[in-house]
Amino acid sequence: MNESPRIAIVMGSDSDLPIMQAAVDVLKELEIPSYVDIVSAHRTPARLYEFAASAETDGFDVIIAGAGGAAHLPGMIAAISSLPVIGVPISATKMAGEDALLSIVQMPAGVPVACVAIDNGRNAGILAAQILGTADPEVRKRIGAFKQAMAETVRQKAEKLKR
Amino acid sequence: MNESPRIAIVMGSDSDLPIMQAAVDVLKELEIPSYVDIVSAHRTPARLYEFAASAETDGFDVIIAGAGGAAHLPGMIAAISSLPVIGVPISATKMAGEDALLSIVQMPAGVPVACVAIDNGRNAGILAAQILGTADPEVRKRIGAFKQAMAETVRQKAEKLKR
Amino acid sequence: MNESPRIAIVMGSDSDLPIMQAAVDVLKELEIPSYVDIVSAHRTPARLYEFAASAETDGFDVIIAGAGGAAHLPGMIAAISSLPVIGVPISATKMAGEDALLSIVQMPAGVPVACVAIDNGRNAGILAAQILGTADPEVRKRIGAFKQAMAETVRQKAEKLKR
Amino acid sequence: MNESPRIAIVMGSDSDLPIMQAAVDVLKELEIPSYVDIVSAHRTPARLYEFAASAETDGFDVIIAGAGGAAHLPGMIAAISSLPVIGVPISATKMAGEDALLSIVQMPAGVPVACVAIDNGRNAGILAAQILGTADPEVRKRIGAFKQAMAETVRQKAEKLKR
Amino acid sequence: MNESPRIAIVMGSDSDLPIMQAAVDVLKELEIPSYVDIVSAHRTPARLYEFAASAETDGFDVIIAGAGGAAHLPGMIAAISSLPVIGVPISATKMAGEDALLSIVQMPAGVPVACVAIDNGRNAGILAAQILGTADPEVRKRIGAFKQAMAETVRQKAEKLKR
Amino acid sequence: MNESPRIAIVMGSDSDLPIMQAAVDVLKELEIPSYVDIVSAHRTPARLYEFAASAETDGFDVIIAGAGGAAHLPGMIAAISSLPVIGVPISATKMAGEDALLSIVQMPAGVPVACVAIDNGRNAGILAAQILGTADPEVRKRIGAFKQAMAETVRQKAEKLKR
Amino acid sequence: MNESPRIAIVMGSDSDLPIMQAAVDVLKELEIPSYVDIVSAHRTPARLYEFAASAETDGFDVIIAGAGGAAHLPGMIAAISSLPVIGVPISATKMAGEDALLSIVQMPAGVPVACVAIDNGRNAGILAAQILGTADPEVRKRIGAFKQAMAETVRQKAEKLKR
Amino acid sequence: MNESPRIAIVMGSDSDLPIMQAAVDVLKELEIPSYVDIVSAHRTPARLYEFAASAETDGFDVIIAGAGGAAHLPGMIAAISSLPVIGVPISATKMAGEDALLSIVQMPAGVPVACVAIDNGRNAGILAAQILGTADPEVRKRIGAFKQAMAETVRQKAEKLKR
Repeated sequence: MNESPRIAIVMGSDSDLPIMQAAVDVLKELEIPSYVDIVSAHRTPARLYEFAASAETDGFDVIIAGAGGAAHLPGMIAAISSLPVIGVPISATKMAGEDALLSIVQMPAGVPVACVAIDNGRNAGILAAQILGTADPEVRKRIGAFKQAMAETVRQKAEKLKR
Repeated sequence: MNESPRIAIVMGSDSDLPIMQAAVDVLKELEIPSYVDIVSAHRTPARLYEFAASAETDGFDVIIAGAGGAAHLPGMIAAISSLPVIGVPISATKMAGEDALLSIVQMPAGVPVACVAIDNGRNAGILAAQILGTADPEVRKRIGAFKQAMAETVRQKAEKLKR
Repeated sequence: MNESPRIAIVMGSDSDLPIMQAAVDVLKELEIPSYVDIVSAHRTPARLYEFAASAETDGFDVIIAGAGGAAHLPGMIAAISSLPVIGVPISATKMAGEDALLSIVQMPAGVPVACVAIDNGRNAGILAAQILGTADPEVRKRIGAFKQAMAETVRQKAEKLKR
Repeated sequence: MNESPRIAIVMGSDSDLPIMQAAVDVLKELEIPSYVDIVSAHRTPARLYEFAASAETDGFDVIIAGAGGAAHLPGMIAAISSLPVIGVPISATKMAGEDALLSIVQMPAGVPVACVAIDNGRNAGILAAQILGTADPEVRKRIGAFKQAMAETVRQKAEKLKR
Repeated sequence: MNESPRIAIVMGSDSDLPIMQAAVDVLKELEIPSYVDIVSAHRTPARLYEFAASAETDGFDVIIAGAGGAAHLPGMIAAISSLPVIGVPISATKMAGEDALLSIVQMPAGVPVACVAIDNGRNAGILAAQILGTADPEVRKRIGAFKQAMAETVRQKAEKLKR
Repeated sequence: MNESPRIAIVMGSDSDLPIMQAAVDVLKELEIPSYVDIVSAHRTPARLYEFAASAETDGFDVIIAGAGGAAHLPGMIAAISSLPVIGVPISATKMAGEDALLSIVQMPAGVPVACVAIDNGRNAGILAAQILGTADPEVRKRIGAFKQAMAETVRQKAEKLKR
Repeated sequence: MNESPRIAIVMGSDSDLPIMQAAVDVLKELEIPSYVDIVSAHRTPARLYEFAASAETDGFDVIIAGAGGAAHLPGMIAAISSLPVIGVPISATKMAGEDALLSIVQMPAGVPVACVAIDNGRNAGILAAQILGTADPEVRKRIGAFKQAMAETVRQKAEKLKR
Repeated sequence: MNESPRIAIVMGSDSDLPIMQAAVDVLKELEIPSYVDIVSAHRTPARLYEFAASAETDGFDVIIAGAGGAAHLPGMIAAISSLPVIGVPISATKMAGEDALLSIVQMPAGVPVACVAIDNGRNAGILAAQILGTADPEVRKRIGAFKQAMAETVRQKAEKLKR
């Protein structure tokens, strides 16, 4: 796990960390290192531009971006970089994440963002791993085992319920 | 009307022109010149950065930005420039403008966008004029006259209805 | 800061004060005085009319109005006065501010309100400052510094996260 | 039917007439005269104040107000006058009347508006008649007959369907 | 206040009482007696039918009905009786009253319900008083005084805010 | 198919027939007779009571009810009868069926309605057949065959697409 | 009550148990045994397939399935089995059950799910009993008694309110 | 382009083809072959299981799935396969794609779907290409060129507008 991270996880504010930590954690479970940073589209636009423009040469292959409210971070990274961008809508306002969901998912033709469920940092991490897995049989094997473990947990809970 | 325009009107796509033309037109009615351009946050991010970063030195005092769908244009200009930015949500998707409305209006604390009604380019133009009017008694007078003419039109329609 | 205030901040009810205080506070940070009042469109319509009709001669250049629920206050001030009006939708009902948002933003052609995010009094204050800044280089400079400080804070948080 | 009308029907724009005409028509069916006018809360606020403030002394007992978009007309009349106000949300924008519905129905405690269904001018007329009927046995009788006729029409359609 | 009540206040469940009590209370403030009952459209449909069918001969002139969720109570009373029916949508489910609002307000042409704001029992009471006031100058005078007191309270709060 | 029908299909208005005819048709495909009637909850409440109260003794085992807008028909039948009631929300208003959906599905504990998709009369018919099939092996067999035919059609379309 | 259960109650996660227990409980009140299991469409798709494919031969006549979020469980069981499937949308995400409601109710023509109210496990149980009641006079009688008891409870609460 | 396709594009119905064709087309522009099939989660569940279970051994690396309404197809493929799944919500019902959006995006923790904008098959294709590009420098280069061409088109339209 001392290789340089291929997955960058960025968020608009440190208040988003509890949600985005779940992406870091599931990637750790899958033995995949990740880089974490705070990059605000609205408060640090220059920093956003630099980060996105150099992400490819910095060695990243997938970018995970979480943001709430108007949530421009994932879409702007996708506008600047050619890498696949995964967006996590965060329920940071009274609109319970619906604003962030629409801001992230409704991207115009030509510039996709891969949107996951509201507040679901964990799924962003798994999706990033699946993307690496398309060219890495070892990662793909781990994801397969991860899915089996998940199924096994449900089975055990079902057994427990019946007793 | 041969002074250099202080109001810039930008839009994400040429398909937004019918909506944004209404801003140009109402400003013309108020004898205020404007500059019109296409700047896509998602397809021309570098151009967006350049436009926003130089808007102030280019002599603009107010920026009107229209966009549909994820609609990041107004918010990103507001992130980069210190000028007041007026956002026009455009009903360009199946969501009838609700996506653009939330993307434009739900900006985080620190970076406001002045959002007007869905597809209401005309109101963006009037608001821009009102902003110039805060320091220009002549413009303010024209807006006052404009409001009186609007009231008069309603009164005439009411008269016609009664007959 | 002993000049007469050019920005009026009004709200429909004293229960809106915690939200609207953020507008007062950010204007103070920007060294801009403001006037604060309670004016209810629905419970004091005459007071609303008087306030709006005399706002210009009272020396105000920008009006910030916050309201929840049916939220008619910003729109009615905009109907009566020629000044730019900034509306703050307040989440005062079970609808989490969606009712106030639509009531404030969906104004008809001819009478704009500059709507900011739900419960975002701070952004209303900043927008008002930006409007004054269109004719006041000193204010504009302060806003530029304010934006740089904001970016710096994000950078420090990012540094802290990495350690 | 040559008595002075006790029901006033006002609307924000002449484009609302097709919807509001249904109120006029059903009142005619019920032999109740009505007064029709165009009063825009946003474009003719002074006219709105005058109309609402004098409605009671002008002999009106019920006011029906239709409006689309931000739809402040019914609520502002209710703010000014003590008479019962019936609001008709009109689907004048891309939001299919949902904006007008919330603007009309979500009035704060102290100032009710009696909201009917979107675009349902007919129901506004019937409700106004029911209100007059609380003190007028003749009107109440006509409403009873009206309801019976409505039931009879359904019964005939059901018969026709079975054949 | 020992006359027989002309206003009936019914609700679908005793859990709705905190909301509907506000209607009782404001009517008491206006010196208007009211009758209160629990009538569930879904759990006691026969009772609903009897109540609505006899409401007129029982001496009621206005019916206020509060209900949450599918909220059929106001609409079914309006279907059966010729009296004006005021509906109060109650936020009894996870949908925060939006379900009850649409169930109450979207009545078909021919059968209106006068819908007030979500959870706003107080406004239902005031509207009922306004309806009685159309034929009772004494009640109308009390409503006028009530509105003035409301305005006065706002004025005092504004004064307090300025100090 | 000359047995007395065990499934009743009712609708609030003859304008709902195009939607509800799909229920009749799919039941015919499954060789199950049905009874069709127009029963308006709001315009013929007495008829609704009679129909629902006698449905069981009239030999019906399942009731399908379609309605738009406030859509009280399915819920009121479920309130009166002990039979299972299937509700079809019909997109009869500007709200595209969302109002009818919530009015039908959000029934309170104790009185269920089995809600199907907006405008999906066909699914109401199939669900009614499935209910009869719980005690009728012949019907169940036909539903199995119906599902296989459906799968076969998809397979043929897939084949056609590949060619 | 020692007969083999004809009703299966499945849920996507053990966190759904508090909601789904209400279905078990009301069936117990109606003296109808039920089988309870955890079957996750997303985490145990093979288990879902097996369960649904063998449900009929396992002796079940009705399946109740509860799920939150994307909520595919009821629809996938309905896709595989010919039995009637009742879906319970569970408010497991920030969207308060609206996501689960649409995922469950908006099934395509050919594959119905009988959707009940959000979080309303109790109604799913009653609906299942009603379905068994279509061929079991004893069950139907119990449902009739259940409805009468429910009405009686409302009546007692109404009496208590009046005292 | 005669290599075996690594991207599978499936849809629930042949009526989804106009939307999904855009994914095929953009992949062709990027010189990436794709496989197209119709697989209905609801009408051909066995086929869905087979397709998803064998997708990996069939040589696919990314799956694009489009569906409308309850839209279970992408989520069920993601449940069965370890490959990354891209979901395209299709506006096939009166809900304008909002139902499909929530059904696709709101997946539970453990089973992500990469959701793109409503009806945006083109973005699904680009995202799939970006995923292949994480391990294929040639594809990545083509995406970079594609983005530059897109920017160039906007620039030309802007030039044309200014003339």
